[in-house]
Amino acid sequence: MYRFECDYSETCHPAILERLSDTNFYQTPGYGEDEFCAAAAAQIREACSLQENSCSVHFMIGGTQTNLTVIASILRPYQGVISADSGHINAHETGAVEATGHKVLTVPTKNGKLTAQDIQSIHDAYIGDATKDHIVQPAMVYLSWPTETGLLYTKAELTEISNICHTFGWPLYLDGARLGYGLMSPACDLTLSEIARLCDVFYIGGTKQGAMLGEAVVFSNISLSYGFRSMMKNRGGMLAKGRIIGLQFQTLFQDNLYFRIAKQADQYAMVIRDAFANRGCAFLYPSQTNQQFPILPDSWLKILEQNFAFSFWQRVDAQHCAVRFCTSWATQDNAVQQLVKTIERL
Amino acid sequence: MYRFECDYSETCHPAILERLSDTNFYQTPGYGEDEFCAAAAAQIREACSLQENSCSVHFMIGGTQTNLTVIASILRPYQGVISADSGHINAHETGAVEATGHKVLTVPTKNGKLTAQDIQSIHDAYIGDATKDHIVQPAMVYLSWPTETGLLYTKAELTEISNICHTFGWPLYLDGARLGYGLMSPACDLTLSEIARLCDVFYIGGTKQGAMLGEAVVFSNISLSYGFRSMMKNRGGMLAKGRIIGLQFQTLFQDNLYFRIAKQADQYAMVIRDAFANRGCAFLYPSQTNQQFPILPDSWLKILEQNFAFSFWQRVDAQHCAVRFCTSWATQDNAVQQLVKTIERL
Amino acid sequence: MYRFECDYSETCHPAILERLSDTNFYQTPGYGEDEFCAAAAAQIREACSLQENSCSVHFMIGGTQTNLTVIASILRPYQGVISADSGHINAHETGAVEATGHKVLTVPTKNGKLTAQDIQSIHDAYIGDATKDHIVQPAMVYLSWPTETGLLYTKAELTEISNICHTFGWPLYLDGARLGYGLMSPACDLTLSEIARLCDVFYIGGTKQGAMLGEAVVFSNISLSYGFRSMMKNRGGMLAKGRIIGLQFQTLFQDNLYFRIAKQADQYAMVIRDAFANRGCAFLYPSQTNQQFPILPDSWLKILEQNFAFSFWQRVDAQHCAVRFCTSWATQDNAVQQLVKTIERL
Amino acid sequence: MYRFECDYSETCHPAILERLSDTNFYQTPGYGEDEFCAAAAAQIREACSLQENSCSVHFMIGGTQTNLTVIASILRPYQGVISADSGHINAHETGAVEATGHKVLTVPTKNGKLTAQDIQSIHDAYIGDATKDHIVQPAMVYLSWPTETGLLYTKAELTEISNICHTFGWPLYLDGARLGYGLMSPACDLTLSEIARLCDVFYIGGTKQGAMLGEAVVFSNISLSYGFRSMMKNRGGMLAKGRIIGLQFQTLFQDNLYFRIAKQADQYAMVIRDAFANRGCAFLYPSQTNQQFPILPDSWLKILEQNFAFSFWQRVDAQHCAVRFCTSWATQDNAVQQLVKTIERL
Repeated sequence: MYRFECDYSETCHPAILERLSDTNFYQTPGYGEDEFCAAAAAQIREACSLQENSCSVHFMIGGTQTNLTVIASILRPYQGVISADSGHINAHETGAVEATGHKVLTVPTKNGKLTAQDIQSIHDAYIGDATKDHIVQPAMVYLSWPTETGLLYTKAELTEISNICHTFGWPLYLDGARLGYGLMSPACDLTLSEIARLCDVFYIGGTKQGAMLGEAVVFSNISLSYGFRSMMKNRGGMLAKGRIIGLQFQTLFQDNLYFRIAKQADQYAMVIRDAFANRGCAFLYPSQTNQQFPILPDSWLKILEQNFAFSFWQRVDAQHCAVRFCTSWATQDNAVQQLVKTIERL
Repeated sequence: MYRFECDYSETCHPAILERLSDTNFYQTPGYGEDEFCAAAAAQIREACSLQENSCSVHFMIGGTQTNLTVIASILRPYQGVISADSGHINAHETGAVEATGHKVLTVPTKNGKLTAQDIQSIHDAYIGDATKDHIVQPAMVYLSWPTETGLLYTKAELTEISNICHTFGWPLYLDGARLGYGLMSPACDLTLSEIARLCDVFYIGGTKQGAMLGEAVVFSNISLSYGFRSMMKNRGGMLAKGRIIGLQFQTLFQDNLYFRIAKQADQYAMVIRDAFANRGCAFLYPSQTNQQFPILPDSWLKILEQNFAFSFWQRVDAQHCAVRFCTSWATQDNAVQQLVKTIERL
Repeated sequence: MYRFECDYSETCHPAILERLSDTNFYQTPGYGEDEFCAAAAAQIREACSLQENSCSVHFMIGGTQTNLTVIASILRPYQGVISADSGHINAHETGAVEATGHKVLTVPTKNGKLTAQDIQSIHDAYIGDATKDHIVQPAMVYLSWPTETGLLYTKAELTEISNICHTFGWPLYLDGARLGYGLMSPACDLTLSEIARLCDVFYIGGTKQGAMLGEAVVFSNISLSYGFRSMMKNRGGMLAKGRIIGLQFQTLFQDNLYFRIAKQADQYAMVIRDAFANRGCAFLYPSQTNQQFPILPDSWLKILEQNFAFSFWQRVDAQHCAVRFCTSWATQDNAVQQLVKTIERL
Repeated sequence: MYRFECDYSETCHPAILERLSDTNFYQTPGYGEDEFCAAAAAQIREACSLQENSCSVHFMIGGTQTNLTVIASILRPYQGVISADSGHINAHETGAVEATGHKVLTVPTKNGKLTAQDIQSIHDAYIGDATKDHIVQPAMVYLSWPTETGLLYTKAELTEISNICHTFGWPLYLDGARLGYGLMSPACDLTLSEIARLCDVFYIGGTKQGAMLGEAVVFSNISLSYGFRSMMKNRGGMLAKGRIIGLQFQTLFQDNLYFRIAKQADQYAMVIRDAFANRGCAFLYPSQTNQQFPILPDSWLKILEQNFAFSFWQRVDAQHCAVRFCTSWATQDNAVQQLVKTIERL
């Protein structure tokens, strides 16, 4: 069985295990105040073209934890966060944002992407409401890059969103669980530094991109990070051995490892995409990142399931389903070859 | 510099790194539904003499996360949890329990240990209060074993507490961040199975006892665990690669590794204790676990600080402070020898 | 200016002020444990055909307070409440439910009414989701009767919803802010006793139906009311002088006052409805309760605004808006006559 | 039976009922945006010597609601509020502050009064803690004036507390549930304007001082009031018919009614105090406000209970209890005379 069902089926890049072994008995202070974290933060700042005194980098455990902590840290109690209704915080986190007391203000989208116009409309509806004390005040914007649908906001789109957010004084928060797969996509016209500049806070995903666990939160707007370490502890998100996350990012951001492994995963995804396209398949979303959503006849699914794991996404019609194939830093060449061969023979 | 300041200064037991390497590219489902977690749960059930259908085992990330999730999962909104005022949830978790909406009902103690009488008194005060709708309803009991002061509840004490909790219908929750160090202490007269039987829910600490991260929550009262996986996700405590925690507990509970390394740490602690005692030092608490709290003249501190890291605890008088020395699974023999030699020459 | 903009523009029915005067210096215990509250609860139980030992009646302050307290009292932390997206808890309470930690699981509706099929679909989607630990668990159903759109669930509809809720074990909660206006509507085929039987918990609105303030929460499923008084205090919803709410309901439920004044308000609403219908107006919703939603040309609005206050609801097309006219227990005959005359001359 | 058990046993001052009758059918907008509230706010500002553009006045329902809303509105999630351990928010509100996510940081006191030194100590402990990310950050100060023990902070004491709060940047919040009884006490050396100047936010109690319900929140530091109306709605504390609270404060602040009725209640309390003192009784607290805490032999209690209601406070020794007698705006002269006669004959 070759597993393409998600991008977190294996443990981590071998370079991380190697470095863990090398440093295992080296003693450090706890809670992220160690030299591994310090070094990783410096590497991340450099990769983002950020200065030490104007940003703040924190290492957290996982995506849901990061999202709920960042959002609860920024909003006042009667404020909400704008998200596409397919956004991870709305659809797949068991109400974690609501558990912090905040409403997710959702926008229906066709493909998982917010637009500046969506944000403008929410703003105008709020401002125009005569009873605005009775409705949740929109106060920050959440988006994923890539989205849950594998798509990217272009530089023009993200700039427009950033501008409108800043016009309204609403922090823009970018969930980068798969940030590397986005940056290495052939469809990408943004750099990490541009993302850092356009957003107020974002996270660089580790869990799905080579690390065992861990996400690096970057406040490029440092004024939003006041008290963030207290907030991390308050929500159970401060790891005693914070060093193990620092060390992983240190490893991933050395010699561009983070980007090299993401690029290879994207390339494998394109190979799989082409294989399905060559057989005439349509796709639910035109993704050029590591997640592919081909629409397949039910009869094909039965055959593919024999040797490959993938995710059911949604039924499209009586004979077809959309499914998801993911590649990752760990995808093996022979697994892709086997999959392609199988597709060719369907 | 030899570090005795805490029990989480290093990464993890080498056997864990070895097994991580061996299984690195092995593919599993995410979120703790993998065979490593299943195997570890089985080993833990066996060590606790619990049956699969009458208990529930979950792998979480860290202590604060575990405490807040378990407590918020059990209490109704107007209920509180009883704790010694020195209890970790009250003193060192940045209000994480309160952030879930619940009051910590504290009891002042001399040495960090609750008594059955304390619990009885809180019960009686509540029952006897004519305005009980106006006060927080006590509804569960939290204690640490060992306590933050390194002490153990005896079998008689824990039995008495368990009995009174069950009389009142209040779940008893035991924080076992250092459970192994307790079980291997010369002062211990309890077994893991007895703890499992006396408590409704407890956790077996990994972070401070050989793991990189991770705590194993055991509901020996399975009826309290309904919906707990949803609760874990809701609080950001469900790791995508849950397997890495499962694998660590699998390793630690194989061939009694967990207990062997704890025993050695306790023995080193006793050596350090004896060294101070031989010099006539008093101790803040009569701990026989891996944390030692000698009361030392300020002049000695200056000398010790040159080569050893340890924690300041509290000032005792104008010339003396209580400090904490911790051993752990990672403590090296030569570090202890150096420390003992230094103490002898003070 | 005659005000038809809402049903809470005046203070209260004169019979209440009279009884307040009569009893002003009579001394009672506080916090709802007085004889006015006891008497009112008995009258309400009788009106609902409920027995004292199988239900629980509580007097609260206002609708939002009542909704948040009831919902937070019933749900566990990872659970959510199903509501029409136009439901008051979702649209007009500034995130009060989310502030208690819970997601409102919304259903888009054309007219503000949930259907049993909506509830079935949410259930099936949840049960069918392979990753249900990652989504909010639906666990109770909220609906308004009448709805915010002035409509009523019929006996058949409410029975079907009640049945499906009970099949799933989900409490059914009915927001009766305008319950009397519903019960007295010509479109109503339900009795108060039937509502009590079909729902698990509901409230009988006072604020909009003759009281200064106050809503009577009725748990016809008494098992859900455990600890509710503690919950009321915990959320700031327990009034020191609870007697003033008890007294108001006592007055309203004596000699059917509650129903008589609601009936008259509905009749006035029908007169206004007919006046608009006679001029060929369409209505946004076919309401037969005290709220009417005619769709009017903009030119008419200008004229009406000169002497009448009413609420803007939504723009329908370039020349027309839907607006809301409310009647209430306080509506004066001459105000209605003036309005009708004005409509006839538009 | 004459009731001295609390100060909320009757409905309200007759002048309020009269004005309610006079204005009953007068139509106003809802939610506190009416002319009664506007007029009352103006009267309160004048009484406090505050300018319209530098303060913000809001009318809320009750004390617990007010406390939880003000505190949750000011604190960030990892911050706590300092209170005497006998403070109402800590002891008698069923965990309402914790339900908003915040820890109450308690200070043991002998008589219910915080000192500037207490606040300094909490500050110093926090600042001096090397692990301050792990403890709740103190960030505001709550005190009652009068305290739950009937005592007053003097001008010197409150000034010292105010100064230290402002040094640390911590808002000072004064719970004035019985503010009038304090201001009219022979022990009072503060004016309302001075209180307004020394505090950042406080409330003027209505419920216990002549109103049916209602408390007037005054932000003399207007910068803390941003979004407060949204916050009120978010916590269920915004009354649809806000006018009824506005009207009550309008009545109470006309012709000094609020102060005149408080003064009389205090005078009656002094009469009762003197009667007990003349019999040689000691008092638990040296209160000169409307609550008196005589320490009485058990045998006396039995006699007093026959005709008088009062509150048990605490057992003092095997033969004596402290009890509480309250006077209020509603206390009748003959009730006091009967009580005094009874005391004289004990």
